Amino acid sequence: MIELSLVGIGSGNPEHLTLEAIRVLEEADLILLPRKGDEKTELADLRRDIVADLLKTKPKVVEFDYPVRDAKTPKYLDGVNTWHDALAEIWTGLIAEHGSSNAKVALMVWGDPSLYDSTLRIAERVATKGISLNTRVVPGITSLQMLTAAHAIPLNTLGAPVQITTGRQLRDHGWPEGVDTLAVMLDGECSFQHVLDVPARIYWGGYVGMPQQILRSGELSGQCDEIIETRAKARAENGWIMDIYLLRRTA
Amino acid sequence: MIELSLVGIGSGNPEHLTLEAIRVLEEADLILLPRKGDEKTELADLRRDIVADLLKTKPKVVEFDYPVRDAKTPKYLDGVNTWHDALAEIWTGLIAEHGSSNAKVALMVWGDPSLYDSTLRIAERVATKGISLNTRVVPGITSLQMLTAAHAIPLNTLGAPVQITTGRQLRDHGWPEGVDTLAVMLDGECSFQHVLDVPARIYWGGYVGMPQQILRSGELSGQCDEIIETRAKARAENGWIMDIYLLRRTA
Ligand SMILES: C[S@@+](CC[C@H](N)C(=O)[O-])C[C@H]1O[C@@H](n2cnc3c(N)ncnc32)[C@H](O)[C@@H]1O
Ligand SMILES: C[S@@+](CC[C@H](N)C(=O)[O-])C[C@H]1O[C@@H](n2cnc3c(N)ncnc32)[C@H](O)[C@@H]1O
Repeated sequence: MIELSLVGIGSGNPEHLTLEAIRVLEEADLILLPRKGDEKTELADLRRDIVADLLKTKPKVVEFDYPVRDAKTPKYLDGVNTWHDALAEIWTGLIAEHGSSNAKVALMVWGDPSLYDSTLRIAERVATKGISLNTRVVPGITSLQMLTAAHAIPLNTLGAPVQITTGRQLRDHGWPEGVDTLAVMLDGECSFQHVLDVPARIYWGGYVGMPQQILRSGELSGQCDEIIETRAKARAENGWIMDIYLLRRTA
Repeated sequence: MIELSLVGIGSGNPEHLTLEAIRVLEEADLILLPRKGDEKTELADLRRDIVADLLKTKPKVVEFDYPVRDAKTPKYLDGVNTWHDALAEIWTGLIAEHGSSNAKVALMVWGDPSLYDSTLRIAERVATKGISLNTRVVPGITSLQMLTAAHAIPLNTLGAPVQITTGRQLRDHGWPEGVDTLAVMLDGECSFQHVLDVPARIYWGGYVGMPQQILRSGELSGQCDEIIETRAKARAENGWIMDIYLLRRTA
């Protein structure tokens, strides 16, 4: 029985790691380390730094490349499924090659493995590929928590609900009924510009928790252009950007 | 200028602490430690254990009692506001008595300070009571993250939104439109029994991340009675319970 631990590593700073995350990585026999394509090598570097600087043991580390996702597959979900399957094949092969039949294998997952991340779904597929697998999850600090911490704001207002959603959802469906707080992730297109009719405040963050962190906040309609510009400039300078924001309806 | 750090300590296990949380606590001049009333002394004990076992420095620790919340105040929010104000008075007094004018003061907050927690609101009030205050937040692992980790499930389905809400909201407004995943906290009344008409799975957890952790999952209508019973029994045995659950609509 392989024990596969999906270890949340937080959103860009080795100090985000929990004691549990460090212990589970230290106890691993094998760490699979994704080498992200091109611009995001910084993210792979964070994982290498964690292994080199934080772990007192030196588990075997095997790096692997991400398969290229086929954006041309007609249906979005088919593309995702094929891609998950390709990754599951890669993990299965690496575990068979480098791990014993009862190895403790660990993967470092950006933020928390539960939040807009495919690692759990890929692990499920590995389990169907003839490997007997026990998956456990070690939570990590999410980018959403880094955003609210950086702005020193609560996620919810008193006793009220919060919706976590994506840029695509916000574009396609507008501001959802019945919630005054929206947290938006996976938004490459500054989709807040599609809900300017709602009186709201925005709390925006790029590279939250990282040395390049940029924060903006204020009335949404007033901040809109400024954030679009700041984002474009930062992206050009760094070669990549990850950003996240919270929208709070005002009375 | 007082630096007030609100430090998330996770949901019941000292291993949930991040390296940042430990560092900020170690660097504090003064730690204010709430002694929760009666049954929940275990929670105050966790904070004492963190100080005793995890910190390499020994900051000054001052314990304080929670003011009793007046459930009879007519409007719910007035009661909460009076209570926040009473706590802000207590903190202000303790900081004035035990801290220098530029002290680093820390408070350990259950889970993450952003999620259904009043500490940030109380800190805002302290800032209006004649203390010059700089508030910073150190994120911690939430009980919701512990729940999804314990069940090894993602919070969201692929690219879909998630709503975080309370038992009261679920009772008063039913299952909200447009979301298939609901995370419910602050529910003393097993409010999932009010949405049995929706075909859904439930992933329930009591004391998540703690030694007494109890998990249940399955089809909502099938699990409903079993969870109500399990919860009542565990509450009677332990003298208290904290529980949380995720509901996922099934097709
Ligand atoms: C594939 S999701 C992974 C989320 C991750 N599992 C988490 O817990 O934060 C990637 C999205 O997370 C957000 N994100 C992740 N890290 C971030 C960071 N350091 N700063 C801003 N946004 C970030 C962005 O919205 C990005 O599009
Ligand atoms: C006042 S809120 C505080 C939440 C906290 N700030 C967090 O980040 O998890 C208390 C609610 O959190 C949930 N909760 C906190 N700790 C828990 C635990 N160990 N197990 C189950 N639920 C927990 C319960 O729903 C409880 O009613």
